[in-house]
Amino acid sequence: MRREVGMKGTMRAAVLKTPGNLAVEEIPIPEIESDELLIEVAGCGICGSDLRYFAGENPWAQHTLGKAEPNPPNMVLGHEFGGTVVEAGSTRLESWVGRRVVVAPFDVSGFDRASRLGKPHLSTDTVHIGHGAGWGEMDYYPGAMAQYCRAWARRCYELPDALSFDVAAVLDIAGVAYHALEVASFASGKSVAVIGMGPLGVSAVRLARLSGASHAVAIDIFDAPLEFALTSGAEVFNTRRQSDWKRKILDFTAGWGVDAVLDTVGTADTLRDGSDLLAPDGTLVLLAVHAGTISLPITALAGERKITTSANYRYEDFQRTIDLTASGRLPLDDLVTHHVPLSRVHEGFDILRNKETTGAMKVIVTP
Amino acid sequence: MRREVGMKGTMRAAVLKTPGNLAVEEIPIPEIESDELLIEVAGCGICGSDLRYFAGENPWAQHTLGKAEPNPPNMVLGHEFGGTVVEAGSTRLESWVGRRVVVAPFDVSGFDRASRLGKPHLSTDTVHIGHGAGWGEMDYYPGAMAQYCRAWARRCYELPDALSFDVAAVLDIAGVAYHALEVASFASGKSVAVIGMGPLGVSAVRLARLSGASHAVAIDIFDAPLEFALTSGAEVFNTRRQSDWKRKILDFTAGWGVDAVLDTVGTADTLRDGSDLLAPDGTLVLLAVHAGTISLPITALAGERKITTSANYRYEDFQRTIDLTASGRLPLDDLVTHHVPLSRVHEGFDILRNKETTGAMKVIVTP
Repeated sequence: MRREVGMKGTMRAAVLKTPGNLAVEEIPIPEIESDELLIEVAGCGICGSDLRYFAGENPWAQHTLGKAEPNPPNMVLGHEFGGTVVEAGSTRLESWVGRRVVVAPFDVSGFDRASRLGKPHLSTDTVHIGHGAGWGEMDYYPGAMAQYCRAWARRCYELPDALSFDVAAVLDIAGVAYHALEVASFASGKSVAVIGMGPLGVSAVRLARLSGASHAVAIDIFDAPLEFALTSGAEVFNTRRQSDWKRKILDFTAGWGVDAVLDTVGTADTLRDGSDLLAPDGTLVLLAVHAGTISLPITALAGERKITTSANYRYEDFQRTIDLTASGRLPLDDLVTHHVPLSRVHEGFDILRNKETTGAMKVIVTP
Repeated sequence: MRREVGMKGTMRAAVLKTPGNLAVEEIPIPEIESDELLIEVAGCGICGSDLRYFAGENPWAQHTLGKAEPNPPNMVLGHEFGGTVVEAGSTRLESWVGRRVVVAPFDVSGFDRASRLGKPHLSTDTVHIGHGAGWGEMDYYPGAMAQYCRAWARRCYELPDALSFDVAAVLDIAGVAYHALEVASFASGKSVAVIGMGPLGVSAVRLARLSGASHAVAIDIFDAPLEFALTSGAEVFNTRRQSDWKRKILDFTAGWGVDAVLDTVGTADTLRDGSDLLAPDGTLVLLAVHAGTISLPITALAGERKITTSANYRYEDFQRTIDLTASGRLPLDDLVTHHVPLSRVHEGFDILRNKETTGAMKVIVTP
């Protein structure tokens, strides 16, 4: 039941009207359901997937459903966010008002088969903040590049005092990294190579390192993002500048290979590189699922090597990631390199698009 | 240290002199090392891989090393066998003499990395009965299509009284099936589809069924092999005769898909079929690793679907398989459809090659 009291009026929001047409507009403040909270957004990260939504792709559908699906018009973008609760959808939730929260930006019906099997993140029956999936028809689809955003109370996590709202905006992608290591069957003592040092890749390398990786290898084609991995003690390789990088990585295990490869880039080249590095019984996890093709010799899977994808995270992964960040084991604050006000959201998208020259890792939009 | 006492003289053996040239010859009875037993072979199965060795391929190298490797000349073929111990390599093994045994036909050094990691079946440092890998240079490489065969005592399992030597010759491939289900993360309540109803596929369907599969689906293009799956209560599909088979299998789980696909055929068609049937979080296991290419849309792996291979088995899998067979839970005796004497081994190969007309499942060569 929709709550008719509370916040009224309009707010500024970055609305993706149609592909390529992102406008900052005054739209109604969202009304909330009885199980929801209204959050005054403190900051919202720009995710690589936001660039893809902007371009008309639907990366969620490709990752989870395995197919292209059109996006509806008038999506408010943004799903990596924290803020302060300003309104509760029911009296039992009123103690939340005033609390600082970070949001896991997707919910599931709970009566879908994926949820029944303990895998809500793989559900086809999900509702997402920041893109149109699952809401039915709306004038404006909820997102966090806005002054206010609605969210399910059960998906709001109180932000520990030690964590800033900047860090809150990086926790979502760090949760994706945590989950990807789990998909890769990572465990202490294993070796991991991560291809692509965006916030996802850096988070994964740091998590692998703090979780006891024998070798946590960071791979990129630029030096600047590799610096972020260096601080965690990872072994870093610039594959454009070091011709013998593959042999050096294989030498860590006398040619056996690494137990896990996380490929955050997803080109034919990175797939082949990842496959070349992979040990028997190892797992290669693709984190960039798009319309391309996998083409590999069957023998690349010999010795029980595995190829798979990782999609989003389990809710427990998000809690673990928050805990690790709050305890100081997983630093994320340095990954926030840029802030732009909501009125200049386009500039923020450009900064991320041109990360090779701007040095952008995480760009945060502040309403 | 080689034992100089014991069996002397020559024996008949099927020697693959060069690709395509399999000759029954008199060759020396193998001498045994101190940790070995000499076995009087009761019967040896012809494996699909034997047809590939005959043709000059090296399926072990493709499965485990991920590359083509030439075979040495003068391999005695045959690795699926049981028999009676007639000689022990040292006094501490003498109690074995006279026992009926079935053999896990490969051994590892134990100081290889795969063994250190608990995965001896993935070792590159193995020695195999029935093909040349790991023996160094020899006049004749040990194999079980012969009157006698040497084997490591630690890889000899006493054959339970309930089991015939015919069944002994099927246990190796059943062990491969047991292991493949493990690679697929099979568990009670999950659904499995097996493509290709040779002895491997039938064993896998039966194991899945007896291990609590919600659905154990058997797929082939001929009715005769599907009959072997039917007896275990599997759901069988002839994909040549039933045009709507894929939809029917998906209907078992309201479109979700099966949790595991075992592809024992390994063509581009079966890979695509298997991928179409696979549920999110499911695993597709390729059991026929050859020189071909995997080509799939990346989105076929969406929802954390996994593709991998399965290679041989862990020794514990072999013990479990023997136990299940001895207790009567896993019947294998009906899979032995043909016997040929060693002198007519070529006929045996032909019977297997033409299984569509001969109805061959397991053909056993008796010395």
